[in-house]
Amino acid sequence: MADKLPSEADVVVVGAGLAGLVATRDLAAQGRAVAVLEARDRVGGRLLNAQIGDGKVVEVGGQWVGPTQHRALALARELEVETFPTYAEGDNVVELGGRLRRYRGAIPKINPAVLADIGQAQFRIDRMARAVPTEAPWRAPRAEAWDAQTMWTWIRRNTVTQAARAILQLAVEAVWAAHPADVSLLHVLFYTHSAGSFDDLIGTEGGAQQDRLVGGSQELALRLAAHLGDSVNLSAPVRRIEQRGDSVTVSSDRGAVRARAAIVAIPPTLCARIAYDPPMPALRDQLTQRMAQGSVIKCMAVYDAPFWRAEGLSGQATSVEGPVKIVFDNSPPDGSPGVLLGFLEGRQARELGQWTEEARRGAVVGCFKRLFGAAAASPQAYVEQAWAEEEFTRGCYGCLMPPGTWVSLGSALREPVGRLHWAGAETATTWNGYMDGAIRSGEAAATAVLAQLG
Amino acid sequence: MADKLPSEADVVVVGAGLAGLVATRDLAAQGRAVAVLEARDRVGGRLLNAQIGDGKVVEVGGQWVGPTQHRALALARELEVETFPTYAEGDNVVELGGRLRRYRGAIPKINPAVLADIGQAQFRIDRMARAVPTEAPWRAPRAEAWDAQTMWTWIRRNTVTQAARAILQLAVEAVWAAHPADVSLLHVLFYTHSAGSFDDLIGTEGGAQQDRLVGGSQELALRLAAHLGDSVNLSAPVRRIEQRGDSVTVSSDRGAVRARAAIVAIPPTLCARIAYDPPMPALRDQLTQRMAQGSVIKCMAVYDAPFWRAEGLSGQATSVEGPVKIVFDNSPPDGSPGVLLGFLEGRQARELGQWTEEARRGAVVGCFKRLFGAAAASPQAYVEQAWAEEEFTRGCYGCLMPPGTWVSLGSALREPVGRLHWAGAETATTWNGYMDGAIRSGEAAATAVLAQLG
Repeated sequence: MADKLPSEADVVVVGAGLAGLVATRDLAAQGRAVAVLEARDRVGGRLLNAQIGDGKVVEVGGQWVGPTQHRALALARELEVETFPTYAEGDNVVELGGRLRRYRGAIPKINPAVLADIGQAQFRIDRMARAVPTEAPWRAPRAEAWDAQTMWTWIRRNTVTQAARAILQLAVEAVWAAHPADVSLLHVLFYTHSAGSFDDLIGTEGGAQQDRLVGGSQELALRLAAHLGDSVNLSAPVRRIEQRGDSVTVSSDRGAVRARAAIVAIPPTLCARIAYDPPMPALRDQLTQRMAQGSVIKCMAVYDAPFWRAEGLSGQATSVEGPVKIVFDNSPPDGSPGVLLGFLEGRQARELGQWTEEARRGAVVGCFKRLFGAAAASPQAYVEQAWAEEEFTRGCYGCLMPPGTWVSLGSALREPVGRLHWAGAETATTWNGYMDGAIRSGEAAATAVLAQLG
Repeated sequence: MADKLPSEADVVVVGAGLAGLVATRDLAAQGRAVAVLEARDRVGGRLLNAQIGDGKVVEVGGQWVGPTQHRALALARELEVETFPTYAEGDNVVELGGRLRRYRGAIPKINPAVLADIGQAQFRIDRMARAVPTEAPWRAPRAEAWDAQTMWTWIRRNTVTQAARAILQLAVEAVWAAHPADVSLLHVLFYTHSAGSFDDLIGTEGGAQQDRLVGGSQELALRLAAHLGDSVNLSAPVRRIEQRGDSVTVSSDRGAVRARAAIVAIPPTLCARIAYDPPMPALRDQLTQRMAQGSVIKCMAVYDAPFWRAEGLSGQATSVEGPVKIVFDNSPPDGSPGVLLGFLEGRQARELGQWTEEARRGAVVGCFKRLFGAAAASPQAYVEQAWAEEEFTRGCYGCLMPPGTWVSLGSALREPVGRLHWAGAETATTWNGYMDGAIRSGEAAATAVLAQLG
């Protein structure tokens, strides 16, 4: 890592998350001098490993890769980061109406009428999603009507059972870390299409949660950064970007860099916190006013061993009651120590985010105990990450479109402004919001910059 | 106005709009030393006069006061700014289904079934609005369901005629400068209750558009600032606020001021663009990510005389076709020159905001010609203000709550953070979004700061 910022570069990249690092790699491979300016004292953005002793790590940020995430899998291969399957052997648990049930596979043993209700809703979501062009969702045949309602409204009007509504709400919370009230139906459809189908989003085997990365997902960013060496400048939050003629000057707390183009690879809501001269066009600015981060607190309890495995349980659980609604076995590849991962998402994250860590730990471990028995009550350690508290992320998993945004402001999402280009998982048209989308967005931004610079 | 920032003050006020200036006045009256830091080279925020020759002005920002806006009227009296009635003599014009109709009073001569449909919707909006506590909208009995849907969804489900839907959409655009898809039903209800009733919002005589201010509305801010003298520091955009122990340091492009408290009196979306140390709590930050400005371009055509008056027309017009959907006679008090004021609001502002000024002028004047005849085709001058382009406002009339925001984040809207207090029209519980609300919020913030400082 460099001590001093260079005064000049061919391209400045703002943000050393996966998108920024991949863009830098591609530009450097074409012989361009790149300066990455990262606000934090680390790389990886929403990818972050936490040490849990004995050299073992858990991921407190994004962590999974799925079978159709070709660019993420290719990058892992390139960087020699191996994948391993998310633990999924044995029975899953579902808690509904105060009752626990064990089941195998993707479909819980609940009332068939509820399953049918969920099934028809999911069928319709997938069918509508296929009609949404991922590069221009506002061109979907029914874009106006789909973007004028919340996902909550759609669920209420297109399901008949209370349990199906609760489970669909839980699925929305799990995928977007947001309440169905927070997000436009059109955004749900766009995002679903960008991943393939709703099952691709929510699935473990065959879906977005199928595999994990050995050494933790941040390893991708750490290895990319190691290859890039002095190009990466940490603790350099960018405050201002000036465009004059064919030059761009990016000013940070550690000084300014002049370049011929810049790639801003941070969440859209944080793009609004940089001062631009000339100021951003109205459409771009209003877009960044409206795209807001979801809310998630990722909570992990560490046990001597994954005791649930011996009881024939996968560690995967779904609870309509909450506040932890989704649980996974997040133990390291060798199964030692045992780690249960619980998500507080959307309103649960906002509400419990105001509690003390101790009270939150009590609530989370209480859920684990309800789902997996008394052995879950006494973890040896507890690790959590509240992404909305992070000054340089301000929420997770990503920025969402509330109603009305895609249709009237969406065209400003990827459109460069002069010599400023936008990257990050939110700008992806395939696997939007995921590591795979972030990588694709970095690749696309690098290609656009190379074309502009000639 | 001061040349140099003081290094210390009792209180720093960020923003010299009406809220900030009123707070400063109240604090100064109690003997406190106040430094106002204003980003622009002028005071008034969303109040702005434009010169149209001969010493005459038109208001290109907020301009009206209504009979129940007691604090705004009291401030005008105190500052010796007189009011005069919005011109409302003669017939209004409504354009619907490609047809022009003249009518007197508040109720246009359109299909009675449509009028009844609008009437029942308005009755229900008012009834629901009364159930929303303006100091805590999330405590309304049906807050969850009301905040989980857009105003678009509510209109679709609670009207039966296409024309009523179009006219209610037009009313939403006129009051919030937003499409019904952009805004939560609960926010509409809160805002309606804060003003009194839906008629209070949309009315001219007896409503929020009843009166204007002689010399233009910005006169209020200009006179307040003149009284405050050296306390007001212009061209000092605030970039950073640090709280340490019992001190607050506010840093701007013109230097830093240390104080014992600060009042941030700018729109919530712009609050997010200041860097805070320590960083804002998650709830407050996520709130400012979600509250987004409406979109409006205020367009005025200036004629030698208000020719429409001679034809028995008030100059007030409503057009479902648009793009100008609402028109007023905005001539100076003596009726010379004649000024037609047309609003481009919500999607119309966003779409036409991307055109050249010439093309936009053509569209606006084209609407005036359709509504008022050939004499409207050749104005001697054209004045417009696109608020979303303004770096230090970024939209108008104010910041809106998209669905899901009031219920899960609303409690952070007015809650001070240590020694930081929030003011501005968006924080008002009475006449939220109006000059009157801004004044009340400034008064309330000053009271809270005085209580804190003791």
